[in-house]
Amino acid sequence: DYSKLDKIIIGVCGGDGIGPVITHEAERVLRYLLADEVKAGKIEFREIDGLTIENRVACMKAIPDDVLAELKECHVILKGPTTTPRAGDPWPNIESANVAMRKELDLFANVRPVKVPSEGIDWTFFRENTEGAYTLGSCGTNVDDELAFDFTVTTTEGTERIARLAYDYAKKNGKKRVSIVTKANIVKTTDGKFLKLCQNIAKEYPDITTDDWYIDIMTAKLIDPKRRKDFQVMVLPNLYGDIITDEAAEMQGGVGTAGSANLGKRYAMFEAIHGSAPRMMDEGRGCFADPCSMLRAAVMLLSHIDHQTEANKLERALDICMYEEKKLAITGRDTGATCEEFGNYVMSTIETL
Amino acid sequence: DYSKLDKIIIGVCGGDGIGPVITHEAERVLRYLLADEVKAGKIEFREIDGLTIENRVACMKAIPDDVLAELKECHVILKGPTTTPRAGDPWPNIESANVAMRKELDLFANVRPVKVPSEGIDWTFFRENTEGAYTLGSCGTNVDDELAFDFTVTTTEGTERIARLAYDYAKKNGKKRVSIVTKANIVKTTDGKFLKLCQNIAKEYPDITTDDWYIDIMTAKLIDPKRRKDFQVMVLPNLYGDIITDEAAEMQGGVGTAGSANLGKRYAMFEAIHGSAPRMMDEGRGCFADPCSMLRAAVMLLSHIDHQTEANKLERALDICMYEEKKLAITGRDTGATCEEFGNYVMSTIETL
Ligand SMILES: CC(C)[C@H](C(=O)O)[C@@H](O)C(=O)O
Ligand SMILES: CC(C)[C@H](C(=O)O)[C@@H](O)C(=O)O
Repeated sequence: DYSKLDKIIIGVCGGDGIGPVITHEAERVLRYLLADEVKAGKIEFREIDGLTIENRVACMKAIPDDVLAELKECHVILKGPTTTPRAGDPWPNIESANVAMRKELDLFANVRPVKVPSEGIDWTFFRENTEGAYTLGSCGTNVDDELAFDFTVTTTEGTERIARLAYDYAKKNGKKRVSIVTKANIVKTTDGKFLKLCQNIAKEYPDITTDDWYIDIMTAKLIDPKRRKDFQVMVLPNLYGDIITDEAAEMQGGVGTAGSANLGKRYAMFEAIHGSAPRMMDEGRGCFADPCSMLRAAVMLLSHIDHQTEANKLERALDICMYEEKKLAITGRDTGATCEEFGNYVMSTIETL
Repeated sequence: DYSKLDKIIIGVCGGDGIGPVITHEAERVLRYLLADEVKAGKIEFREIDGLTIENRVACMKAIPDDVLAELKECHVILKGPTTTPRAGDPWPNIESANVAMRKELDLFANVRPVKVPSEGIDWTFFRENTEGAYTLGSCGTNVDDELAFDFTVTTTEGTERIARLAYDYAKKNGKKRVSIVTKANIVKTTDGKFLKLCQNIAKEYPDITTDDWYIDIMTAKLIDPKRRKDFQVMVLPNLYGDIITDEAAEMQGGVGTAGSANLGKRYAMFEAIHGSAPRMMDEGRGCFADPCSMLRAAVMLLSHIDHQTEANKLERALDICMYEEKKLAITGRDTGATCEEFGNYVMSTIETL
């Protein structure tokens, strides 16, 4: 309960590539919305600059120790995209910083809303955030030159807590339906367990209809104009949540438009669902980066710290600005307006609400 | 080389639910196209009726022994959808018949074309068909009440043969680009191996551009109107291929419109990518089932047995009939025309070509 805290500390982690540009913009809008409380010392923004690929490579850790210590002193974190080293990159193979942060801060739930009001689409994905293919993602084995294994994990506690969060959300927000998405016909033990445990939790919510889908057909139904409006709340193992939320975000205008909340018992982290777009920086187009995803993440942050009025304002303003952006092409990478100009536009729109 | 055979034996396996209805229709159209060769004894259609859920449950095998023996006497197989038992079903837990057939006949490649000519979309997916999450799908472990594991497998041979097939296809068909799709940033050992081996094979095809994508962002790019035309040939591990081809099929009009080829060194099996729709049968609407997926599978079968002229004819006729169906709503589940009427319509269209 954040209203009981003397002071809420918001850590701001810019990350890599376009991360600092768009995170700075989201922070600027948040500071504008929370100006009185910042002045009164009830909210503090704390810059955490060390989570860069250079620092991570220097210590060969997904999160340097001092950065982790700083993160743990915050209540909530606004985080820009970080670069994950991949085959062919100049960096050695260190783990993804977001995946590491989810594990280190036990952020077990990844909540990703996607809305297309004109189409009647209003989805909220509850992606399990620390298990599945991610728990032991670096622990696979090359048995010999021929044969390689990887592992997938499902735990009872991990599944029950994400299921409960999804159903509680559905109940609180008057949603009528929760869809469980797995591949339990093939990945029988872990996905089978996930499905069964979710179905058990479902029994505690008799007013909510539960259905279940396989991830393959779900990626089709999600874009089926006749069906897509019917989905409301979805709960999924980590990897399927990862996959389907990128597809879902595309329906809304692309991964650049989608924010996500990483929630745990003690900490919460809010981020864009897309990557750090290093090429934009290389080409000198960083200032044109689209801050919408981080601003959507900021909406979720505000709502999480019980600032629902501010969250609603920012959301309305974003809906308007993103609609205008599409309609008038006043900004965005294609048209030449900058990230900062978009931020200004959002703030001036808030003024008019 | 099928032209060297005295006789080509085409096994026809109706399967469950709407399977026999739509498979029968595809067989009828095939017999019509191949009438002379059937009469001359150069092609034989062999009905294999035993692959039903009832028989499979009776012997508790995904494929009854006698059915498997019959299958192995054929050169190619046309297979209707089969029912895979799932939690809550009246059937005990036996493995999926298609997955079992892929393993038993070593059908290592699942080739799934998706076309939307009006949008410039012409994709061919090369899904690895026997490994990944599927190899040990029933071998997961419940360590205790809390913890469950499943396994993913990549082998060198399995990866190299699917990669080579994809690149050979690209080369033969004048495709400029092959995209490798994995989640190698997380599923590091197996997907990392898959990615690396595909990249090695790529070096043997210097005229073809290779790129690689993570499956999450790929599900977004696939529906991005600015990007989707650019993709041509995709090669993926089993589970990602399973997931993304349902999404892709939806772009073309739904899983009911998509056929797939399961190819091995010795055998080849052609099927719909969708399920057996038992509910349609229960509701007495089986005769209205849409045979398009099986007719698309029949196109691939014809092409596979070196009957390219017939394959082209059937494909043209299908393109026309499916287009008309959409435009005039002359058939399909919603309008009251039957599966058989659609088959007749396809054959009368072939007459006009
Ligand atoms: C960058 C990557 C490791 C990450 C993930 O797979 O979770 C990303 O795709 C996401 O969805 O946040
Ligand atoms: C029915 C199911 C086991 C199967 C699969 O997962 O391969 C199906 O989805 C497919 O794509 O053929």
